[in-house]
Amino acid sequence: MRITKTFFETRLVATGEVGFVPTMGFLHEGHLALIEAARAANETVIMSLFVNPLQFDRDGDLARYPRDLERDVELAAAAGADVVFAPELEEMYPGEQFTRVNVNRLSDEMEGPNRPGHFEGVATVVAKLLAGVQPDRSYFGRKDAQQLAIVKRMAADLSFPGSIIGVPIVRESDGLALSSRNVFLSSQEREEALALNRGLMAAADAAEQGVRRTSELVGAVHGEIGTESNLSVEYVTLASQDLVEPLDELDRPAFLALAAWSGKTRLIDNVHLDEANGGFVADRGGRLETTSVLYGPGGPGGGRG
Amino acid sequence: MRITKTFFETRLVATGEVGFVPTMGFLHEGHLALIEAARAANETVIMSLFVNPLQFDRDGDLARYPRDLERDVELAAAAGADVVFAPELEEMYPGEQFTRVNVNRLSDEMEGPNRPGHFEGVATVVAKLLAGVQPDRSYFGRKDAQQLAIVKRMAADLSFPGSIIGVPIVRESDGLALSSRNVFLSSQEREEALALNRGLMAAADAAEQGVRRTSELVGAVHGEIGTESNLSVEYVTLASQDLVEPLDELDRPAFLALAAWSGKTRLIDNVHLDEANGGFVADRGGRLETTSVLYGPGGPGGGRG
Repeated sequence: MRITKTFFETRLVATGEVGFVPTMGFLHEGHLALIEAARAANETVIMSLFVNPLQFDRDGDLARYPRDLERDVELAAAAGADVVFAPELEEMYPGEQFTRVNVNRLSDEMEGPNRPGHFEGVATVVAKLLAGVQPDRSYFGRKDAQQLAIVKRMAADLSFPGSIIGVPIVRESDGLALSSRNVFLSSQEREEALALNRGLMAAADAAEQGVRRTSELVGAVHGEIGTESNLSVEYVTLASQDLVEPLDELDRPAFLALAAWSGKTRLIDNVHLDEANGGFVADRGGRLETTSVLYGPGGPGGGRG
Repeated sequence: MRITKTFFETRLVATGEVGFVPTMGFLHEGHLALIEAARAANETVIMSLFVNPLQFDRDGDLARYPRDLERDVELAAAAGADVVFAPELEEMYPGEQFTRVNVNRLSDEMEGPNRPGHFEGVATVVAKLLAGVQPDRSYFGRKDAQQLAIVKRMAADLSFPGSIIGVPIVRESDGLALSSRNVFLSSQEREEALALNRGLMAAADAAEQGVRRTSELVGAVHGEIGTESNLSVEYVTLASQDLVEPLDELDRPAFLALAAWSGKTRLIDNVHLDEANGGFVADRGGRLETTSVLYGPGGPGGGRG
């Protein structure tokens, strides 16, 4: 496996069709699933590791963001990456970044209002990566449903030749969607947080059984979270997959997404509802059979039982 | 020569290093000089012809914009283009264009305030063209000095691999910078408009002789335009070539640019001042020896003596 530091070098070492997995590092099985998807369909698999200052909207978050290049390189290689592109800040932003990419309307709802400037930062850095790496296929997790929609639209609107592929969520063995933030949850918070997944699964069942009213699907989620819970729900929204448009009814490919605070930890999760055979089929994601690398040696939750 | 309608087809027919000349069509020798520059340095020369709705800021301008594909194809072929990429609106904007590219700060001065949304439209369509055509070198006229600076910065900021090259202004035999708008000038307006070029040439001489104060350089322009003139000057500005930053003094690569109304016709012109041998050398552009194709058969001024 090669480690590259510049776009030029990265294009140079790539041969044949290129699958690309952009990440901010500190990998877990969610990222590794993206590498595996890329591995199955491309000659060269490139993973980028870059903590993008442009997309951080909360003071201090950028400085606190965990970095461990050695650990990431090892995990990426084991999962099948050919190249790890790990640019320094100077390669990505050699001067002041005057150019900004915005995907209007798709950024307006859900995560958008909560995170001013975040999606502008994401769209800008992903445009840079697509322009500089020139991949045939790029892989993003369905966990960040709105981000996936925005990146898809940006790539199409800007006529980038490669395709953008969404990959199912990877969940811990108890159903909690993988996130490096999970390690901040206390045992009690974690127990309560499982209600988010249970709620989405109940809604997924309902959608597959023919329920179409958003109010019913959202109700199914709240039914599992309950009123006694310490979870503080920010939103539960059914939105279209293409335009992130809130829907009154499940009448096109959509995702049912939520954000909630468990103590001081903000969690997001969703279930994508894809059209199939005249109805809808829910993408519930996959579950790990073992403990996540998040809790292994070198992981942020390495101290956790 | 090939005519292509899609990005896919355009990438397919290009071989070796690709020189790219994006235009809105209705070609004159200014555009043909871009093809010649591209021809000298690349295996494949692609010219695009697309009237971009996104960059029109005045009502009705888009509808009035002249189009003549047959004439343009003939001129492009004669000048040495291998491919004319002439996409329909549906290839460029198949749906609503939610994604916008902005180059902040560089759009703030000069043409920016006069043309709200114009540079956003330019940056967005050029980003699309660079992403979709993947050229090694792209050629833009120095006539649109601020546009050239914005495109250069956008391409660098978004890590597009190809380079952006500015090509000297082509002037009519009497010195007037080539523009399809020149055909709207009456004989008297045209006579008066020549003062713009004379003014810039006087400033160019001064700069080459060591004058550095912006006020003196701008004064040299106004000295030629005079106070009796019917020309209505919008601005005469010395700005840096990289950031379009207004300068008090000529102390880095810059351009001295102006906009003026002659009757109902808005004209722009400039002289780039490049560093050389510890001083500055002015790019005065080149002059045609004969009448421009603007006034030939099929040209917008075909009826003019």
